[in-house]
Amino acid sequence: MSDRIVSAAVVVIGNEILSGRTADRNLPFLATRLNELGIQLREARVVPDLEDEIVRAVNETRARHDYVFTTGGIGPTHDDITGDAIAKAFAVGIDYHAEAVAILKAHYANTGAELNTARLRMARVPAGAELIDNPVSKAPGYQIGNVFVLAGVPAIMQAMFESLKHKLVGGLPVRSLAIAAYLAEGAIAKGLGELAGRHPEVDLGSYPFYRQGRFGTSIVGRSTDPDRLAAAAAELRQLMRDLGAEPLEESTNSPG
Amino acid sequence: MSDRIVSAAVVVIGNEILSGRTADRNLPFLATRLNELGIQLREARVVPDLEDEIVRAVNETRARHDYVFTTGGIGPTHDDITGDAIAKAFAVGIDYHAEAVAILKAHYANTGAELNTARLRMARVPAGAELIDNPVSKAPGYQIGNVFVLAGVPAIMQAMFESLKHKLVGGLPVRSLAIAAYLAEGAIAKGLGELAGRHPEVDLGSYPFYRQGRFGTSIVGRSTDPDRLAAAAAELRQLMRDLGAEPLEESTNSPG
Repeated sequence: MSDRIVSAAVVVIGNEILSGRTADRNLPFLATRLNELGIQLREARVVPDLEDEIVRAVNETRARHDYVFTTGGIGPTHDDITGDAIAKAFAVGIDYHAEAVAILKAHYANTGAELNTARLRMARVPAGAELIDNPVSKAPGYQIGNVFVLAGVPAIMQAMFESLKHKLVGGLPVRSLAIAAYLAEGAIAKGLGELAGRHPEVDLGSYPFYRQGRFGTSIVGRSTDPDRLAAAAAELRQLMRDLGAEPLEESTNSPG
Repeated sequence: MSDRIVSAAVVVIGNEILSGRTADRNLPFLATRLNELGIQLREARVVPDLEDEIVRAVNETRARHDYVFTTGGIGPTHDDITGDAIAKAFAVGIDYHAEAVAILKAHYANTGAELNTARLRMARVPAGAELIDNPVSKAPGYQIGNVFVLAGVPAIMQAMFESLKHKLVGGLPVRSLAIAAYLAEGAIAKGLGELAGRHPEVDLGSYPFYRQGRFGTSIVGRSTDPDRLAAAAAELRQLMRDLGAEPLEESTNSPG
């Protein structure tokens, strides 16, 4: 564990997300799992299947964050151009990777399907990259520099993430705490703003809701300092009571 | 209607998306609705509640696209900083907007709740912006230049979008067509790649699926030219039959 903030970005690659055909499910998964590992997701981008757009997003994000995760575009079809774009972003070549070829050969020998030229494309890997195991459908992901190149299909992406997570070094774990009350956001805003001013080490987010015919607000506190988080939470509960509402504990999470 | 490609970007503002607490629902809605209006969503970004990050994302995207839509951060609490960030991005001031103040006064007079300082913050609007009606909860969104600033709560964002859509000028509508077959992606990849090479005006995406115990692939064709789309689709159906599978029509959409 590192004693500083460790940050990450996600680059979602795929026309199907931007056309509205498919709703992305990888971002919520990665956001949650990274946070559990003490890595703060600070940025996400969705880009189309265009090489220049992928190169640009990968190069901008890998310069700004400790880790970058891409999803999508590593299958066997003509629109799977992530590998070439990653090679271009790192200014390295891309070629058939002996270990990846062996994995695909063994897999297709097992299934009886033909390892044709299109399928073999999935063994093309940028020079210097290290494979990431794909226990679901075998065609591997890979890591190059601080960039992890993963599949777009959620079940495969999730399995690849579990295969690679031992390589990630988390920073200070972020504790979070959610407290709700049946108070309109506009009623608690002033006191909450003052409270946030007194606790700069605690990130306080405010999320209005409407449940069972009543307006309410969930306040989420996040901090790497559990004592300061607890102190802010105590003040928050008191603020809610002062405004005539009972604080409702929603959830606590203490990853680490 | 414009006779060129009209492009858009979405900037989702909110720590809650990046922490995994909330799954974004605005991007799929905007992607679908914009496409229906002949506007191609070409990029999306998720940024945290940090002024510099919002300024950067808004300025980069508004220079690259015809329209930009932001969601989130326009409520009454201390973490709602979108207005100030937008003003900074456009290098203009931000102040109470007379019409917005009047809307909020009328609304809170109706509901009986107090129009306090925090709620009045929702009437702060960057100089030169034009209000966007919010039929759900009244506090307005606004347009400044080619940027539309919308709420983060999906029901409110969607209502605001319907209020503003008459201001958007779409380009050539994109027709799309999805044809599936019980063929593995790797089996159709070669023929599909050749087909894509013969039809550069048709964007062909390939999406594997697993249904009722069988692997299959959906091919989505998108084009502004209906004749070329139809020609590519006819070849695609023939390709599927040549590979021994029956083409299954999934959906056609002809916005415009």
